[in-house]
Amino acid sequence: MKLKIIVPIITKLFEAETEKEVKQFLSPGTEIDVECIPYGSASIESAYDEAACAPGILHLAENAQKQGFDGVFIDCMGDPALAAARERLEIPVVGPGRTSILFAADLSHRFSVITVLESVVVLLENLAYEAGVGKKLASIRWVNIPVLELGDRSKLMNALVEESEKALCKDQAHALILGCTGMMGVADELSAELFKRGHRVPLIYPVSTALAYLEALVNLKLAQSKKTYQFPSNKERNLWERLGS
Amino acid sequence: MKLKIIVPIITKLFEAETEKEVKQFLSPGTEIDVECIPYGSASIESAYDEAACAPGILHLAENAQKQGFDGVFIDCMGDPALAAARERLEIPVVGPGRTSILFAADLSHRFSVITVLESVVVLLENLAYEAGVGKKLASIRWVNIPVLELGDRSKLMNALVEESEKALCKDQAHALILGCTGMMGVADELSAELFKRGHRVPLIYPVSTALAYLEALVNLKLAQSKKTYQFPSNKERNLWERLGS
Amino acid sequence: MKLKIIVPIITKLFEAETEKEVKQFLSPGTEIDVECIPYGSASIESAYDEAACAPGILHLAENAQKQGFDGVFIDCMGDPALAAARERLEIPVVGPGRTSILFAADLSHRFSVITVLESVVVLLENLAYEAGVGKKLASIRWVNIPVLELGDRSKLMNALVEESEKALCKDQAHALILGCTGMMGVADELSAELFKRGHRVPLIYPVSTALAYLEALVNLKLAQSKKTYQFPSNKERNLWERLGS
Amino acid sequence: MKLKIIVPIITKLFEAETEKEVKQFLSPGTEIDVECIPYGSASIESAYDEAACAPGILHLAENAQKQGFDGVFIDCMGDPALAAARERLEIPVVGPGRTSILFAADLSHRFSVITVLESVVVLLENLAYEAGVGKKLASIRWVNIPVLELGDRSKLMNALVEESEKALCKDQAHALILGCTGMMGVADELSAELFKRGHRVPLIYPVSTALAYLEALVNLKLAQSKKTYQFPSNKERNLWERLGS
Amino acid sequence: MKLKIIVPIITKLFEAETEKEVKQFLSPGTEIDVECIPYGSASIESAYDEAACAPGILHLAENAQKQGFDGVFIDCMGDPALAAARERLEIPVVGPGRTSILFAADLSHRFSVITVLESVVVLLENLAYEAGVGKKLASIRWVNIPVLELGDRSKLMNALVEESEKALCKDQAHALILGCTGMMGVADELSAELFKRGHRVPLIYPVSTALAYLEALVNLKLAQSKKTYQFPSNKERNLWERLGS
Amino acid sequence: MKLKIIVPIITKLFEAETEKEVKQFLSPGTEIDVECIPYGSASIESAYDEAACAPGILHLAENAQKQGFDGVFIDCMGDPALAAARERLEIPVVGPGRTSILFAADLSHRFSVITVLESVVVLLENLAYEAGVGKKLASIRWVNIPVLELGDRSKLMNALVEESEKALCKDQAHALILGCTGMMGVADELSAELFKRGHRVPLIYPVSTALAYLEALVNLKLAQSKKTYQFPSNKERNLWERLGS
Repeated sequence: MKLKIIVPIITKLFEAETEKEVKQFLSPGTEIDVECIPYGSASIESAYDEAACAPGILHLAENAQKQGFDGVFIDCMGDPALAAARERLEIPVVGPGRTSILFAADLSHRFSVITVLESVVVLLENLAYEAGVGKKLASIRWVNIPVLELGDRSKLMNALVEESEKALCKDQAHALILGCTGMMGVADELSAELFKRGHRVPLIYPVSTALAYLEALVNLKLAQSKKTYQFPSNKERNLWERLGS
Repeated sequence: MKLKIIVPIITKLFEAETEKEVKQFLSPGTEIDVECIPYGSASIESAYDEAACAPGILHLAENAQKQGFDGVFIDCMGDPALAAARERLEIPVVGPGRTSILFAADLSHRFSVITVLESVVVLLENLAYEAGVGKKLASIRWVNIPVLELGDRSKLMNALVEESEKALCKDQAHALILGCTGMMGVADELSAELFKRGHRVPLIYPVSTALAYLEALVNLKLAQSKKTYQFPSNKERNLWERLGS
Repeated sequence: MKLKIIVPIITKLFEAETEKEVKQFLSPGTEIDVECIPYGSASIESAYDEAACAPGILHLAENAQKQGFDGVFIDCMGDPALAAARERLEIPVVGPGRTSILFAADLSHRFSVITVLESVVVLLENLAYEAGVGKKLASIRWVNIPVLELGDRSKLMNALVEESEKALCKDQAHALILGCTGMMGVADELSAELFKRGHRVPLIYPVSTALAYLEALVNLKLAQSKKTYQFPSNKERNLWERLGS
Repeated sequence: MKLKIIVPIITKLFEAETEKEVKQFLSPGTEIDVECIPYGSASIESAYDEAACAPGILHLAENAQKQGFDGVFIDCMGDPALAAARERLEIPVVGPGRTSILFAADLSHRFSVITVLESVVVLLENLAYEAGVGKKLASIRWVNIPVLELGDRSKLMNALVEESEKALCKDQAHALILGCTGMMGVADELSAELFKRGHRVPLIYPVSTALAYLEALVNLKLAQSKKTYQFPSNKERNLWERLGS
Repeated sequence: MKLKIIVPIITKLFEAETEKEVKQFLSPGTEIDVECIPYGSASIESAYDEAACAPGILHLAENAQKQGFDGVFIDCMGDPALAAARERLEIPVVGPGRTSILFAADLSHRFSVITVLESVVVLLENLAYEAGVGKKLASIRWVNIPVLELGDRSKLMNALVEESEKALCKDQAHALILGCTGMMGVADELSAELFKRGHRVPLIYPVSTALAYLEALVNLKLAQSKKTYQFPSNKERNLWERLGS
Repeated sequence: MKLKIIVPIITKLFEAETEKEVKQFLSPGTEIDVECIPYGSASIESAYDEAACAPGILHLAENAQKQGFDGVFIDCMGDPALAAARERLEIPVVGPGRTSILFAADLSHRFSVITVLESVVVLLENLAYEAGVGKKLASIRWVNIPVLELGDRSKLMNALVEESEKALCKDQAHALILGCTGMMGVADELSAELFKRGHRVPLIYPVSTALAYLEALVNLKLAQSKKTYQFPSNKERNLWERLGS
């Protein structure tokens, strides 16, 4: 199986890091291609960023289907352009936001998301309601670190532990979701730390979870409903030619 | 008061028609500027179209604020790029979808929307839930006429009457919303026809309604919450320079 | 346009003050008539008060339609007798509770109401659910000052600032509604104070908001659905003749 | 135990009929007093009627508590003035609407109400949501017979059977509620007829159900929460003296 | 009327204590038979315990109907095997969880349950949602005392007072439910203590409440809907013969 | 990875058939053991059957963990004993009901389940609400064929096509779930038939879907939250020794 991983931002250095991260989680026989978008925002922290990145995501997604990929993964927790890509393609398109929220809804009665900034809280809350499981959301908390500064691991880890504790003790969450796909390489350590503190709750890392889910969909020959995500009709669209793509 | 009307599609001939239509509803003292977007889709009938049109909408919206407009109206029922534009601007930004749904929620117990195609039903349903009044939605029906073919008035009128009857009698709607801003010049006739058939229900025409609402917001000095729609942080974004704007 | 403002309590001195307050918000060309009810309660702080004031409200509302008014505004946050008046009349009848809640639902993701006493919290919460947007309610807080003691402005302002801070910081409200129409002349000062403290959120003053909304309805030729608010059938009713009206 | 049955309309002949009806359902040791209100409407079929009848209901309810009654039953499916009376009194006040809806919610997964006229559907639907069990409502249907014409038993019975069949077969109701307390003396016959047609579902007759519930509350020493239904504060109220009561 | 009280655990000494407790609440003319189950768990504090006790509950319930009882009461707050017993029997089967939740939904706007251990919170929350009134749940709190240690009355009373205070003041509950039927003989004292502290809220004791409700159902000739709780079809079932019953 | 497949009924011949069915869906490296329960019901079509089968399911599930299995799959659409087994075990326990509902919630806006008999509709509806996605349920339909008669493939296929058409056209479902794990070997044919009729919607076969999901959980080292599904405390339980297991 060949999967396309779209890193939906223009910050090129996330490409290699994501590839390294993602390779740990693949089943034998799964090949991937990881690619940043050519035009958009340096990171996604608002609906404005999502709008700026959507054309690039759709461009890569359409190419992926033409090139024979079996599925597409849009590697950002806000699931930018997910509905649009699902309309345009027949192969399954998966986002980590929706996926991890649905896994959490199965594994627990109530869950929290720990994300980067307050500015994305409403986006993620709407996403949970649109997925259909908003009422299982205990809280959305944030570490107050912008995406491009997540590289400071010890700062990130401290903030994640602090917000996780609040989610579990104050908001009565029964499961946790790492709320940004840029929080790479910290899930195992955070999980161990929470276990040490007596919390036996699932910690869902959206990147590995969504990839496993996409592999499952491809194996099951399942994809998005073309009744929900109907093919866009043919008409004049001059955006991509203006973008030179 | 100066209002910017963004016609969020690239089909230029909607510009003049919209201007003519809109002028009937303005209060004395309100000036408007109507403008189509420079790049995007010929019409909006999918999430894919919305993604294609968002960059152009945001470009015009940002300019409008710089040029001193008092408010922005995005003239499409799906409210494309509304959240992104509300984040980026301080002046009020209004969409006809959200607005007409909230007026209908006040004036009735339950309402229906009559839109163009089945492909936009999910978009409008999500919009109603996100606005917060999804549970008052009796149904979303469609006339099965694409936006660019709405010019055939008698075909449109027949289909509108038929679907309105079904909404009122079968779905028990108590109010109706015309579900596409391209359904210009038919509201009064449809209203009269429904009255003749014994239906005393409000028919909400989203263009006039959203304009009146925007005028009210400007007069009340109200605008979108900057807590919900936080300013996007500064960062590299190369989309618009690639678009040459 | 001629609008009837019903002050739905028997405390006469509210009449002049309301007239003064209201006149600031009217569009050119709008005439008003402000009138207290002849029988009822001195103020409205319970369902019991609402029941006591309803006959007087309906009496004035019916007269207003007979006298050719274009719309009726029932000037109390609990929207007393709103459904009954909407049934009885054809001209639009508007309440500040429902209206400000729907404006807040558009402008923000989640909002709080700051009202007078704990005794009205349930009334307002039910009103929000009946309007259809209950799930966007962050909280209802109260300043613990009875309606007839709202005249002490500095006490009121201090309490409003304190409860607003709690709504914004503890309850995560993104917009605020002044929860009693008797909180006159404080909106601008409160708004400025909150801005000074770093909160960029809409503060909705229900009186001005509902008046602007009523003007919009009259201009749009919209009124309540007569399917939701059906005309009461003719039958013996001896209440008003007993009341000598 | 002494219970006050308020017949909340001014049509005197309902007094004797209600007394006869009600006496069948009382436990040994329960005494009742049945009384029509002195001013209001001839019947209740709208929010307008409810507002007209509320002052009379409250007058009788307050007297009942003073006279030492142990509980009050407001004998109309719309539960008019229930919240107001619960605020004013300490003894339990019960309405057949709320009560029968909650019994139905226990005994079935989903239920329908068969009421008199379309004009009360919204009132009953709001009542179910306010009671908290709106999502278990399969439908509200009506026999299209005004309250004062319910005396034609065979017409009523035919219409009840027809609407019950639709509720059970089309709306998938699992239990039925007779939606008007004026539908006296038909429950047993309707129940038998439905059983004969193969429907083994509870038919809830609101009068007997609410009386049994009120007896239970009195025995259990339970009454409405004074936190939800807070005592109205003392203030000038001139309605009842104008009414000469 | 003859009612069967099933004590759905194998701890025999609860039998006598329950019988003593229950006898206080019966109407004249009601006879009861109290019986522990022959196989299951010593107490119920998990879904696992509920599964272990269900066969014994069903065994006693089926016998009760054969022996001519008029109704069955399953004396545990989690309502174990309630749906299964309602399917199997025609006589009314009642659980204290569902019943007390519905009484609380009528008497108040929002209520809390004070139960034994954190491990049953999810069970009770699901039960409230399935009953249909989940949105009226203010909170579920627990005293952190296992069922079999509830005998220490002063420890229990202290913990109940503490958690009740939190429910009323922090969670804004307007009514309270004792969340375990093993909390015998404390309701009156707790009620008095809360009254002394200024709280005028109903305290619902599920045992007396559910018994009164069951008596009402029998008198009203009402029982569970056989559309919701359909008779299980005949087929091979070898569980009970293996159990030697 | 070693997975335990519990066939939660006592009809032995389902064991071999399930094993054959299941083997098609396994990833390389996954080993399974398929086993019927020793005591319970011949099939599961009611809450009563679920209660009868739960002890056997829990017996096999506990053994599976002791024997070193990596995960447990309870092969019945009603997810019998799922919560109890999740409490008792640490390894992931998965049910096809919850799983297929959550997959459908991701892939579509609204979905229907086609099950065997009307008697399980309420069980499945409650399951969907408890999973958290009840509002995405378009309908639950049934073929009216008992589990033990599903062997007549052509009868089953005809009924499935008919009910699927109704779900898609009348109930506006956008995805379908086969609502009984006994509907073996028909998914591909049904899918092809629906495609031929112009429906491009996902058809979710719960057995393959839940197995793929369980493999994903094991690979991701995820399991049920021990906060939601807390370990049952130690206490006397005499059920299983009575059952001789």
